[in-house]
Amino acid sequence: MKKHNFSAGPCILPQEVFQEASQAILDFNNSGLSILEISHRSADFVSVMEEAQSLALELLGLKDKGYKALFLQGGASMQFLMVAYNLLEKKAAYLNTGTWSSKAIKEAKLFGEVEEVASSKDKNFNYIPKSYSIPSDADYFHCTSNNTIFGTQMKEFPATDKPLVCDMSSDIFSRELDFSKFDLIYAGAQKNMGPAGTTLVVVKEDILGKVSREIPSMMDYATHIAKESMFNTPAVYAVYVSMLTLRWLKAQGGIKAIEAENNKKAELIYAEIDRNPLFKGFAAKEDRSLMNATFNLVDESHKETFDKMWKAAGVNGINGHRSVGGYRASMYNALPLESVQLVVDLMRDLEKNV
Amino acid sequence: MKKHNFSAGPCILPQEVFQEASQAILDFNNSGLSILEISHRSADFVSVMEEAQSLALELLGLKDKGYKALFLQGGASMQFLMVAYNLLEKKAAYLNTGTWSSKAIKEAKLFGEVEEVASSKDKNFNYIPKSYSIPSDADYFHCTSNNTIFGTQMKEFPATDKPLVCDMSSDIFSRELDFSKFDLIYAGAQKNMGPAGTTLVVVKEDILGKVSREIPSMMDYATHIAKESMFNTPAVYAVYVSMLTLRWLKAQGGIKAIEAENNKKAELIYAEIDRNPLFKGFAAKEDRSLMNATFNLVDESHKETFDKMWKAAGVNGINGHRSVGGYRASMYNALPLESVQLVVDLMRDLEKNV
Repeated sequence: MKKHNFSAGPCILPQEVFQEASQAILDFNNSGLSILEISHRSADFVSVMEEAQSLALELLGLKDKGYKALFLQGGASMQFLMVAYNLLEKKAAYLNTGTWSSKAIKEAKLFGEVEEVASSKDKNFNYIPKSYSIPSDADYFHCTSNNTIFGTQMKEFPATDKPLVCDMSSDIFSRELDFSKFDLIYAGAQKNMGPAGTTLVVVKEDILGKVSREIPSMMDYATHIAKESMFNTPAVYAVYVSMLTLRWLKAQGGIKAIEAENNKKAELIYAEIDRNPLFKGFAAKEDRSLMNATFNLVDESHKETFDKMWKAAGVNGINGHRSVGGYRASMYNALPLESVQLVVDLMRDLEKNV
Repeated sequence: MKKHNFSAGPCILPQEVFQEASQAILDFNNSGLSILEISHRSADFVSVMEEAQSLALELLGLKDKGYKALFLQGGASMQFLMVAYNLLEKKAAYLNTGTWSSKAIKEAKLFGEVEEVASSKDKNFNYIPKSYSIPSDADYFHCTSNNTIFGTQMKEFPATDKPLVCDMSSDIFSRELDFSKFDLIYAGAQKNMGPAGTTLVVVKEDILGKVSREIPSMMDYATHIAKESMFNTPAVYAVYVSMLTLRWLKAQGGIKAIEAENNKKAELIYAEIDRNPLFKGFAAKEDRSLMNATFNLVDESHKETFDKMWKAAGVNGINGHRSVGGYRASMYNALPLESVQLVVDLMRDLEKNV
């Protein structure tokens, strides 16, 4: 049966990517070798890495603007640490919009003072704080663009003369933004870019080299820039599949085209959440995420029935995170509109049947 | 044409593993989903992680002996840093047997005093130093069991009451050792265990928790032990393929059986290196690696001819590292004896033809 995969991450990728990614395990580029057994220094893989880096910058509109794209290991959690290692001299400003922001703040505190400029913890992170100021002595400002668990998303970013650092793990490549406003963007691959195991870091070079501490080689962005993400063996396959996914995105028409699709999917499900008396949305309306729609049953007694319905229909990964409960429909780039339509139909069927 | 893959890493894996690994990209466990799109918290993947950890300990003979197996990101280079973060309070002892030892020493120096107990740098690391003593005030002793670049391998390890830490990236699972003598073993997957992107760490729990510094979450072995390698999203696919490779190794008869095969391959090529007047071995005979045979032409003018011969025969990855020149035949677990025989035949053919 065809599955409708709403998993919050790792998540659905384009079917064409799976086909090509499967073939490359058996024979990569007609080399007679699997992509898993070739040297990362081979011409074939070096060209994969270069294309992945180049596509990332191109799709974000950041080519020839002083940025480098890196593919590193360790996920966003490693970036919580690397950001502070590389940028935090004395004090940093963080916006706390959920679990991942909180973790980023925790790691940064080992390196200096952290000022939490605002937090939405008072309402279980169901909104994005809007009025806050960034201290004039901050080394940088850090925020999380999309909060997978709570289903909120920043629609606007503060104007600031401080380096703007953003964890875009769960919404990079999903909507148009002026990415040149950001000085450092990082994103674990496993939402809109590829499989788990690699992390994209896009960094403006001129913000580096300003802290006085000695930085271990693997923690130092300068190391990875100098070696073009090949200081040590990279996550070859995860980078390859990311490159395939970025190629796919470019062929779809890039971020502008995919954003139009993402808008349609989000409008469809949020309209049903608001219309259907059995459901209520979790996130504040103005902060709703295009990627992760979080919603709960008004009457929890319908849970067993609804769960049976979506399981029978081949829906995967729609349970909400334990911090929020209910449901979470993650609608990343590769999820077809028809999968969202199916869930909307199931919500309507539930209404008819109860 | 069938390829004979002598790549130093990433390197050849068993053909059966490639088949199953390719299929799982299209449909994992008959779930209707790719292994690349499932949650790392799904029952299917949790069971992969558990089996990988369990197989690693079982194959090393370390079950129920106080060890934990972790699958982390970042390669051995990240372990250079994590070892020091977790274990270096004041002073550590390192044996320097090559490029990777030197890099490990460099990173450790950021955390405390490092005593290099011995080094073979004087002879371009073509041997393993034997007589050295480990200072009584060392927090631990660190060594590299196999030196991929130079083709040397430690046959014996020092008896010491200090925690014994070993980078076994390029020879783990290839030969029997009393692994219970070691307190921390780490190994990038991309030789005998799986694809690039995950790193096995086997650590005896009682050596942890003895340094006074605060350790960032991602650097702290205790974090990863507490979360069973799932503190954050692991490198799902690399762990899966590692699990398949460990299953394969167990089915072959485990380390004892594969060591017998590895001995045959090594004896075959070293016998030819010693017999054939056109070639000379690089590493000291008593320290020769079972994994990486390094050898040079006595007369470099034959290089063009020999290179044409092995390329025409479908040999891949046999060029030596730039630090040593000549050739390096990496003969990891999955390389068939027939591939080594082919290279030996080519060496004989060269002798006949020049």
